[in-house]
Amino acid sequence: MKLTTLKTATGTSAARLDGDTYTLLPYADLSILMAAGDWRAAAAAEGGETVAAAEATLTTLLPSPSKVICMGRNYAEHVAEFGHEMPEAPVMFAKFADSLTGPYDDLPMPAESEQLDWEVELALVIGKEGRRIPKEQAHEYIAGYTVSNDVSVRDFQRRSKEWLAGKAWTSLTPIGPWLVTEDELPRYAEGLEVLTLVDGVEKQRGNTEQFIFDIPTIIADMSTWTVLRPGDVILTGTPSGVGLGRKPPEFLKPGQTLTTRIERVGELVNKIG
Amino acid sequence: MKLTTLKTATGTSAARLDGDTYTLLPYADLSILMAAGDWRAAAAAEGGETVAAAEATLTTLLPSPSKVICMGRNYAEHVAEFGHEMPEAPVMFAKFADSLTGPYDDLPMPAESEQLDWEVELALVIGKEGRRIPKEQAHEYIAGYTVSNDVSVRDFQRRSKEWLAGKAWTSLTPIGPWLVTEDELPRYAEGLEVLTLVDGVEKQRGNTEQFIFDIPTIIADMSTWTVLRPGDVILTGTPSGVGLGRKPPEFLKPGQTLTTRIERVGELVNKIG
Repeated sequence: MKLTTLKTATGTSAARLDGDTYTLLPYADLSILMAAGDWRAAAAAEGGETVAAAEATLTTLLPSPSKVICMGRNYAEHVAEFGHEMPEAPVMFAKFADSLTGPYDDLPMPAESEQLDWEVELALVIGKEGRRIPKEQAHEYIAGYTVSNDVSVRDFQRRSKEWLAGKAWTSLTPIGPWLVTEDELPRYAEGLEVLTLVDGVEKQRGNTEQFIFDIPTIIADMSTWTVLRPGDVILTGTPSGVGLGRKPPEFLKPGQTLTTRIERVGELVNKIG
Repeated sequence: MKLTTLKTATGTSAARLDGDTYTLLPYADLSILMAAGDWRAAAAAEGGETVAAAEATLTTLLPSPSKVICMGRNYAEHVAEFGHEMPEAPVMFAKFADSLTGPYDDLPMPAESEQLDWEVELALVIGKEGRRIPKEQAHEYIAGYTVSNDVSVRDFQRRSKEWLAGKAWTSLTPIGPWLVTEDELPRYAEGLEVLTLVDGVEKQRGNTEQFIFDIPTIIADMSTWTVLRPGDVILTGTPSGVGLGRKPPEFLKPGQTLTTRIERVGELVNKIG
């Protein structure tokens, strides 16, 4: 299944993509649907109204996850482009629910920075509550995957010991366009190509087979210290090719178009506003 | 006013402390009350049922803040005890809503660590939504203050570049016992003594006048990159005397009692479970 959140005349609605038509589901958005108990059954149920995909307006896929946790330094070539040591333990940081924005929304250029940078990331969505999840059972806790871009404000990220102030800006992390349930993809989304383009020019090309910490390891580790809940979002890190790592460094400018693509999952297209 | 969240026969309720009696308010908890528009009027309104303070059971003060943001390295002596450079910019990291727990709740000793440490912190609660708040107007955005302890799992905190995995453990950050509204305290809570005791032995004693970044600076800086909303929680950093900084290092053990006290605000008492 492909599940998403659409704008409607009166607000928003969870929806399922059936061919070239969205079927509305009786939940205000996908976060609410996923928190409502048996989300797989709710998502697969007969729906009501339909909207042609070409006429649908998508909005933030998951507007209210209880957690958004991100992996840093999880592709070897990205670690190498900054000359860092390979991490011995997973590098994890947080974003807020309101850091997320829609798959085709404009990204507001910060007035306070000229160092807006791209980071294509496969995002994993949790499907079942768990704590201290054994690696071997990790797949049972995955609802599916989506596309995100961990857009980063580099001067704020690097001004202190901790990255949060450069990573969690309001409405600067696009996600979507839909949640692709895990049964439609290789187990643990292995072997998917991930890409960033700026104004159509390729900037990042990597593959999820290059993860330093694979998805079972990430889920087992995170759930050691925190409860994971349906609808929670985990960003899995970015490959090499970010703007800051280029010589000379390159950053996003107002008017540019950021395209973020993951093989078999989907594509985000966001203009810098 | 002093506002809190109590357990009731059927769940929880927001409440106001009137002398030695809690007056229940018609909101399930203080997070819900603070999100409900004019929270000052709602909190000051005539209430219904009352409960003698001696018979009340307090629970997590704010169970669902949209954000919990913490300051690291914000007291000079705490920076010095680890030999770090004074930060040139605020060091900020996140916790999750479910990291918070009640003022008298047991703190679950992590099975995976023996390095549980204390950090008394004045917590600030936001009272009004804002973005890019000028320093001079910061006081308008403060609902009040409460006590917290940024209990930290040091080996998880220090295993990688980012602190989150040692800071955001589920139910390991006590907060409360109440929100003291800002009109009852010095502006920006200046000059309040903050203390930690372990089994009655003093471990930390500091004063909020020692902040490296004061509260107007924190609010102005944070709101540059994120929207602050009523009920959001900001931890303002800890003074020297943490267990990791002692020679030899000291950590919390099951059965010990952690007391966290802030002058004119309140006291937390948590047993390590």
